[in-house]
Amino acid sequence: MPRRTDPVAELVERAREGESRSVARLISLVEDESPLLREVMAALAPHAGHAHIIGITGSPGVGKSTSTSALVTAYREAGKRVGVLAVDPSSPFSGGALLGDRVRMQDHATDAGVFIRSMASRGHLGGLAWTTPQALRVLDAAGFDVVLVETVGVGQSEVEIAGMADTTLILLAPGMGDGIQAAKAGILEVGDIYVVNKADRDGVQNLTRDLRSMLGLAERKAGDWTPPILKTVASRNEGVAEVVAAIEDRLSWMSANGVLTERRRARARDEIEAIAMTALRNRFAHLHGDARLDVLATKVANGNTDPYTAADELIAAL
Amino acid sequence: MPRRTDPVAELVERAREGESRSVARLISLVEDESPLLREVMAALAPHAGHAHIIGITGSPGVGKSTSTSALVTAYREAGKRVGVLAVDPSSPFSGGALLGDRVRMQDHATDAGVFIRSMASRGHLGGLAWTTPQALRVLDAAGFDVVLVETVGVGQSEVEIAGMADTTLILLAPGMGDGIQAAKAGILEVGDIYVVNKADRDGVQNLTRDLRSMLGLAERKAGDWTPPILKTVASRNEGVAEVVAAIEDRLSWMSANGVLTERRRARARDEIEAIAMTALRNRFAHLHGDARLDVLATKVANGNTDPYTAADELIAAL
Repeated sequence: MPRRTDPVAELVERAREGESRSVARLISLVEDESPLLREVMAALAPHAGHAHIIGITGSPGVGKSTSTSALVTAYREAGKRVGVLAVDPSSPFSGGALLGDRVRMQDHATDAGVFIRSMASRGHLGGLAWTTPQALRVLDAAGFDVVLVETVGVGQSEVEIAGMADTTLILLAPGMGDGIQAAKAGILEVGDIYVVNKADRDGVQNLTRDLRSMLGLAERKAGDWTPPILKTVASRNEGVAEVVAAIEDRLSWMSANGVLTERRRARARDEIEAIAMTALRNRFAHLHGDARLDVLATKVANGNTDPYTAADELIAAL
Repeated sequence: MPRRTDPVAELVERAREGESRSVARLISLVEDESPLLREVMAALAPHAGHAHIIGITGSPGVGKSTSTSALVTAYREAGKRVGVLAVDPSSPFSGGALLGDRVRMQDHATDAGVFIRSMASRGHLGGLAWTTPQALRVLDAAGFDVVLVETVGVGQSEVEIAGMADTTLILLAPGMGDGIQAAKAGILEVGDIYVVNKADRDGVQNLTRDLRSMLGLAERKAGDWTPPILKTVASRNEGVAEVVAAIEDRLSWMSANGVLTERRRARARDEIEAIAMTALRNRFAHLHGDARLDVLATKVANGNTDPYTAADELIAAL
């Protein structure tokens, strides 16, 4: 088949064929808020809605990157295409890593069925960039079966990623006071699957027990998903198959209960709102040189109208 | 004259008669984003546009509160009504003060011609609350001749207050490395009057000389205001009369050159934009339960449209 001459259509086609460079280019267009983005999103729209978006979060040091890497390997063995978005300043994908992790991830870097990308977090508390939903849309439409989003569990990023992902994995590790941290951060309300990593260490029984009793206190309605608690030693690949099995259980449950459809709709809703809000903010920014705003400001400064009435007129003029 | 029965009109009337409690109530309506605010602002509009808004900023420890207090005394002696807005977590008006400062300010607290209010700053860098312009409008319309806005000089608050005030005083003090700090923070571009406080201390000559040479480097057009450099020992009231005289010079210059009108227009512009942006954000927040957004989200989730087209439809529907 001859290549099409429309550059956006060609880029989307190549991304869907699995060319990493084209996928990377599409995400860069998202991050740069390119004027081409509108056309890109229109071209991607018919292909989206198939990926399983999995959030992976937890405090620094619980082994998020090692776990992510182990999950990538497991999904590749099952023949699935895997995308990884790392919104984590301490992630090896973002450059701030221990050498061991970095080497481990480089195995995947040469695998055409894996796409890895780090994204800048918003602000020092590690909140997700507002472009994250659009980057997820790119990976979804590019045909990745599974997209893992790794975020460091500080500030409100766990809550944000849980709102965005289909399935959220909360990672904990013994000996880090995580039981208490978890309760504090409210992450016990957002996890779909709890993974106690580094399960060969002291304190794993206490942590698991604390976690179980705290999850037991959460209110659940009949038919709600019951989050399992699993143990892994991700660095030795122990327990990873069970995590994959739990993720698949969750996917089946979501499909059967309409939750998957609802999650995808919620993600689209956030995305539409973010785009609309940005568009309006840009229009406001352009207003600074606009004669209409000057006219209204003069009227307010002279006491001929009040700022609320002027704001109404401004909104009407947009 | 019998009191009017319209509660907003009555509140505005009492505030204009100098009743502190009514002024305080109006500012609380601003801070709480009260639904009454629109009516309040309409009632205030004809009365605004007379106050001289003076920003006072500088690093912690230069003596902002002592200087503010000395200026309040000087303006009271001249028979003017003075409002003080303290957007400064370390200000005695905000509670975080040395006992001496607090006692000094309490003298003013019993004076009906003085209104003092602390406002929360936005975030840890001490940025001004977005409601600051509206609080200034309340004090202006309530008939205060002079409004002093004290902000701690960290982050971008000096630049923000300079954009909002008619006249900006930059305070410095010897022995704090302020010469260098000043240049770093870019405050040399925003000050209208420079005050070297604690001028009885060592290092005052060096600081004044450094400041003069740095200000000399700034580009100024013919007819531009030339910022004076004054010395004070605010705690002993030394040099305060000269600061007041410089502020009055600046006011005359601004009136003669149309700068005052332009400043007031710019303040109105910021205010209109802030109100309009908030109104739009609120409409977005309400959309979460809106059927139109759900319909659009479903279309996007199903791949029947792309999020940009949906965002356009959403904006059109607002």
